[in-house]
Amino acid sequence: MAIATETLSDVCRAAKRASRVLATLDTQTKDAALEAIASALEERVPEILEANALDLEAGRASGLSEALVDRLALTPARVAAMASGVRAIAALPDPVGELLESFRRPNGLEIRKLRVPLGVIAVVYEARPNVTIDAAALCLKSGNAVVLRGSSSAAHSNSILGAVAAEAASGAGVPEGAIAVIQGRGREELRELATQTAQIDLIIPRGGEGLKAALLEHATVPVIYAASGNCHVYVDASADLEQARRIVLNAKVQRPGVCNAAETLLVHRDVAAVFLPDVAAALVGAGVELRGDELARELSRPVEIAPASAEDWDTEYLELTLAVAVVDSLEAAVEHIAEHGTGHSEAIVTRDQDAAQRFQLAVDAACVYVNASTRFTDGGEFGMGAEIGNSTQKLHARGPIGLRELCTYKYLIEGDGHVRS
Amino acid sequence: MAIATETLSDVCRAAKRASRVLATLDTQTKDAALEAIASALEERVPEILEANALDLEAGRASGLSEALVDRLALTPARVAAMASGVRAIAALPDPVGELLESFRRPNGLEIRKLRVPLGVIAVVYEARPNVTIDAAALCLKSGNAVVLRGSSSAAHSNSILGAVAAEAASGAGVPEGAIAVIQGRGREELRELATQTAQIDLIIPRGGEGLKAALLEHATVPVIYAASGNCHVYVDASADLEQARRIVLNAKVQRPGVCNAAETLLVHRDVAAVFLPDVAAALVGAGVELRGDELARELSRPVEIAPASAEDWDTEYLELTLAVAVVDSLEAAVEHIAEHGTGHSEAIVTRDQDAAQRFQLAVDAACVYVNASTRFTDGGEFGMGAEIGNSTQKLHARGPIGLRELCTYKYLIEGDGHVRS
Repeated sequence: MAIATETLSDVCRAAKRASRVLATLDTQTKDAALEAIASALEERVPEILEANALDLEAGRASGLSEALVDRLALTPARVAAMASGVRAIAALPDPVGELLESFRRPNGLEIRKLRVPLGVIAVVYEARPNVTIDAAALCLKSGNAVVLRGSSSAAHSNSILGAVAAEAASGAGVPEGAIAVIQGRGREELRELATQTAQIDLIIPRGGEGLKAALLEHATVPVIYAASGNCHVYVDASADLEQARRIVLNAKVQRPGVCNAAETLLVHRDVAAVFLPDVAAALVGAGVELRGDELARELSRPVEIAPASAEDWDTEYLELTLAVAVVDSLEAAVEHIAEHGTGHSEAIVTRDQDAAQRFQLAVDAACVYVNASTRFTDGGEFGMGAEIGNSTQKLHARGPIGLRELCTYKYLIEGDGHVRS
Repeated sequence: MAIATETLSDVCRAAKRASRVLATLDTQTKDAALEAIASALEERVPEILEANALDLEAGRASGLSEALVDRLALTPARVAAMASGVRAIAALPDPVGELLESFRRPNGLEIRKLRVPLGVIAVVYEARPNVTIDAAALCLKSGNAVVLRGSSSAAHSNSILGAVAAEAASGAGVPEGAIAVIQGRGREELRELATQTAQIDLIIPRGGEGLKAALLEHATVPVIYAASGNCHVYVDASADLEQARRIVLNAKVQRPGVCNAAETLLVHRDVAAVFLPDVAAALVGAGVELRGDELARELSRPVEIAPASAEDWDTEYLELTLAVAVVDSLEAAVEHIAEHGTGHSEAIVTRDQDAAQRFQLAVDAACVYVNASTRFTDGGEFGMGAEIGNSTQKLHARGPIGLRELCTYKYLIEGDGHVRS
């Protein structure tokens, strides 16, 4: 645990030292430490709620909205959920030490490519205090030290949760410094963290565009951005329209505030006149506000749709709003997605295998769906277990960032006095 | 090919458009285009040498050293070597479309993880003109568009080589804009290139620390740094000393100017008195200047060694100089490497299997050798074929950057009307 008198660079150096030991811990030790963390969370509920109450009080005093206060609030049930999340991570396969490749060169050199931890991961988050525990558990399981920097509004909660995790882990054989919490002391400190290239191997931000912009400007440490998702559902000429309606509704309505929810519906001209009035009525019935291009508005009648502005195609609403456009072809849909998409999750609804394949090949995104809702982009839904976010970048990790994505690899080469000629 | 009147952002946008088509080309088309490039190089030797002569003339006039003039110079043999390099890349397996994983979820969703091109890769280089062709061929084979930015001293050579490649590729069905050369118009332009996040998916710099610093400061596009190699050979207490001598000499002397050459020799105290006089004599005999810590100097006698300063441990000499230290244990060697190494290539010479394993696990580097020279860190030596550099970073690509490392992946998910509940 970071103590107030330690400097940021002390904390990072201690994490680096701890990471060398962590990288060599066996699965059993790491899993036992995770179980110790889960038990400690369950045992220390009163302390945790007490610290959380201080944050809630300060939040209410400073006029935090009720929605934000609710995100911040811990309850015995929420703490229990954290503990069971930690146990679920313990139950996942250990990614460290996995042999990715192994080959023998003609000269007799034996080369193995082995998955190893990254080292020290900094997680910068603005959200719920449970991220403290989720991130600590994922990093520990993947053999990484973690430096956690939550928001100042959750300072007491994050601090006690970090202390509970660090103390339990340390009692179970995890080196001191492996789980550290630093408090959000403003952008100056974020900049310092983001330039500790000798100590920090990766920064994962979980927050809004302001946080992303600050890191883009200042970070010299590698960053994986869990960027926004401007996701599309394209209803092809040959779509099963009943299926299409179900998928569009699910992608928009089931949980509109998340990055894998749909923000734009694209409909092939050949089915627009049949499909649009039906789906528009269903969407409006579910409380969705629609904004359409001219043709979409015309073909949706009798449902009345507001006109879409140019910005609508680039907007991640994260609420019950959906942009609607009619396109002339699959290629036009692909083009629209290339221009406006963010490379997160894109879907086609079609009964035409060839169209499905063309769409999947041509669309440049982490996840490309055929006849399924974009809402499935999620580490849990992919069977990877918990995730620390979804990456829309192409380097290193694309899509759900789970345990394996928190690792790198190294080559181990064995010779018998081999020299190069 | 970029024409002088095109702006940098025109070139990048054209490359992005081309990359969408490139990503869908089959192996046969790409290999035929590579063969066309190889033939065109062979056919257009006179033009290429003529352009090169202009660069050589300007270089001599501006007082370029003979070594740099030699790096710049093209000959019929060097052009032929480029052509055969392109054919070797054509002969490599196509990384694109490789199925990395495939699984079916309990709900029936079929998920495939497929290797796909990154998109547009910018290669910024200061070195020999042959990089123009190497980089173009590697990017084409991996389905990526490439924007090539060489140094102004090689402007005419890079321009004709880029034109030869682009024209030949375009005649063989590769979209226009897939291979573009821009001229080094100074740091302002580099900054513009390094911030084209909508068009460029990756920048690979091949150059000195100045280039790296400029990119670290300005780049918002992802960069893979092929950083320097401060590589160590550690001679363990149980080493076969004859093998150790051979490996140390090879790692230092065989080609001192490259990143996988050794820069520091660490010797276990138990064998230092026997090993050092012998290896020091051999190294000095091979023209190596030695700089030792106190104990190394004492134990190397009768060979006289200059004292090492604190900076020596952090210096990548890239010439016939070697720092030498005596360490008390394998752990002390690991500690020294953790403090001074750059994570490139590190070697232990030992007959003790347990020591070998401890070293390989504990040393955090791209390539960790047992009883072999560090000089083997190379795409060709690893059987990956040509490489575009060696990465010392941990994200995405570590070690040799070959065809697969120029790719990303995407998830293709097929359902039958699946929605999330």
